[in-house]
Amino acid sequence: MSVTAAQGFTAAGVVAGLKSTGRRDVALVVNTGRSKAAAAVFTSNRAKAHPVLWSQQVLGDGIAEAVVLNSGGANCFTGPFGFQTTHATAEAVAESLGVSAGDVVVCSTGLIGVGDQVFRDKVLAGAREAAAGLGVDGGADAAEAIMTTDSVPKQAVVAGDGWVVGGMAKGAGMLAPGLATMLVVLTTDADLPADVLDAALRGATRVTFDRLDSDGCMSTNDTVVLLSSAESGVTPAADDFAAAVTELCADLARQLQADAEGASHDIRIEVVGAVDEDDAVEVGRSIARNALFKAAVFGNDPNWGRVLAAIGTTGAAFDPYDVDVSMNGVRVCHAGAPDVPSESVDLTPRAVHVLVDLRAGGAEATILTNDLTHDYVHENSAYSS
Amino acid sequence: MSVTAAQGFTAAGVVAGLKSTGRRDVALVVNTGRSKAAAAVFTSNRAKAHPVLWSQQVLGDGIAEAVVLNSGGANCFTGPFGFQTTHATAEAVAESLGVSAGDVVVCSTGLIGVGDQVFRDKVLAGAREAAAGLGVDGGADAAEAIMTTDSVPKQAVVAGDGWVVGGMAKGAGMLAPGLATMLVVLTTDADLPADVLDAALRGATRVTFDRLDSDGCMSTNDTVVLLSSAESGVTPAADDFAAAVTELCADLARQLQADAEGASHDIRIEVVGAVDEDDAVEVGRSIARNALFKAAVFGNDPNWGRVLAAIGTTGAAFDPYDVDVSMNGVRVCHAGAPDVPSESVDLTPRAVHVLVDLRAGGAEATILTNDLTHDYVHENSAYSS
Repeated sequence: MSVTAAQGFTAAGVVAGLKSTGRRDVALVVNTGRSKAAAAVFTSNRAKAHPVLWSQQVLGDGIAEAVVLNSGGANCFTGPFGFQTTHATAEAVAESLGVSAGDVVVCSTGLIGVGDQVFRDKVLAGAREAAAGLGVDGGADAAEAIMTTDSVPKQAVVAGDGWVVGGMAKGAGMLAPGLATMLVVLTTDADLPADVLDAALRGATRVTFDRLDSDGCMSTNDTVVLLSSAESGVTPAADDFAAAVTELCADLARQLQADAEGASHDIRIEVVGAVDEDDAVEVGRSIARNALFKAAVFGNDPNWGRVLAAIGTTGAAFDPYDVDVSMNGVRVCHAGAPDVPSESVDLTPRAVHVLVDLRAGGAEATILTNDLTHDYVHENSAYSS
Repeated sequence: MSVTAAQGFTAAGVVAGLKSTGRRDVALVVNTGRSKAAAAVFTSNRAKAHPVLWSQQVLGDGIAEAVVLNSGGANCFTGPFGFQTTHATAEAVAESLGVSAGDVVVCSTGLIGVGDQVFRDKVLAGAREAAAGLGVDGGADAAEAIMTTDSVPKQAVVAGDGWVVGGMAKGAGMLAPGLATMLVVLTTDADLPADVLDAALRGATRVTFDRLDSDGCMSTNDTVVLLSSAESGVTPAADDFAAAVTELCADLARQLQADAEGASHDIRIEVVGAVDEDDAVEVGRSIARNALFKAAVFGNDPNWGRVLAAIGTTGAAFDPYDVDVSMNGVRVCHAGAPDVPSESVDLTPRAVHVLVDLRAGGAEATILTNDLTHDYVHENSAYSS
């Protein structure tokens, strides 16, 4: 119920035949409230899918009536025909709801290069069916319909004082900064204009989804949309609202991490003692993207040498011979030499905490990632075949 | 015989007990010629191992008498004790040969954080034993002694007109730009001063080792040294010599790629139509580092969408909707849409060729990489345990 937890929203999730498994694959979220204020952030990948190019236009005026989403095909690099499919999808929803197509956000996820006539026909039929089946209890179906390799739907709600903000997310592979491979729809009944929604959303994604870097691969379709119905009649302080959106996004980001393809460890890389936040993020990201470090964690091997080799590739301010590294509470490296023997580190729990103290300043940041496993290789070598 | 193919060099490789397998693990290459001119390039990783910090000093004056190398421990992040070990190693060789320790290059490879008293004792004893066993036929033993996870020794020779340049290399994992995890010793009997050697070596590594990016991980110990004995008495044109060194380095780089840990495909990513060479390298590197693309190749899946998603993350000049992608000779993507069905692509051979035409200019570059396999994960999760 999360995407419909806020007053003024209906949703649906239907089976359109896009997934070979016969599961739900088209979702629709509609704002029935008195405000249609909206904001969104999109992938920073330059190879943007058609739905992203379309939806960027839709959000230009800070207004959105609905979000239609499909799994089973990313509609990316599908030529002019693919863009027409996105346009037609928005038109189908608009017609069903009696709104303008220019106010319908479109999101797609699945394989790149998939988007032929059969795909289009199924998406359009699914969109119309979803529009006919909308309900205030449709959130769970919608969350199911956007799953691809996700093993569980992701939903969350944060309650404010007289208002709520809730949401759903999908994403399991290709998780990286500039947003993960993910589609996220957030809804609120707080009465706030688009610019406040936009500031809250950008602030939240910067410290949540943008710091989840499961496999370093940036998607072509990532979209996070926030819709306000204003139906609570309450206008919270901008800071309170921003904090709630950040909490919600952090919750969903952790759900994405926990369900990352093939992962056997959820790794939290906390970088402290940085000169500034950018340095801390750069250092954390370099570790999160180091294949050797990630493979070592899979093997429950506290290989701190690979951590240092990774941070040595960054331009951050620090002295390589004055860095402390701790793993699950044990300081294994201090001042350029081994400290507590790494045999004392237990990496068998799924949760792994890597603490890097750059000893250069007072700023910090945390990056979330996963290990590199046999299952990751299996899922991503067999995914499209 | 490659590192001793040029006149004026002797070498040895001995068993010092650093490897648990009981294989050769300390190598020594000595310049016995009338010139001691030398040049080197080192890892650009800021977390440099003690031997790298030492050898950078040695090469400061363009003179080197010998190169001593050990596998079985990287002597990196081993504290002040570790630096003293490197110094003592150079002293041991210098004493045995009757030269200055300041002219002895030291290279180490193996686990980071390994370098205690036992390690030091073994390295010193091995260095002395190697010095006592030098011979003009010692190249093969030396090439064996520097192997870590390498399955085969790597050697190559290129003959000029009255002179030769030969070499040996080790490296199998942690292969990435700014040099791979590798140690390379090149020798020549061409009579050339240090500055010409330096220019030839930098030019060669820039287009060979620096464009081999097996797993995106940059080592702390990479070193490539070129020694000249001048014993041929021939001074080739600088261009001819540079071409020979480049050919030699390209040969060794391909040997490193072919032996990359766990790899089942050797992938050659050729980027053409770039505005400049830097753009071509950036685009090639982004593909080489994309875990999803690499896993797809492992699965013999010509997933060109992952190629486009990778290049979309770069800042190179191109229009994402006007890029051609071919795989093993089949153009699978043209002008932002599928072209020849990817079912026509056969990725079962070990050699995979990815051709990306950015259609933006006339520059090009080729990056070599490998696929992401179960064996890569296995070898790198179990390596130190």
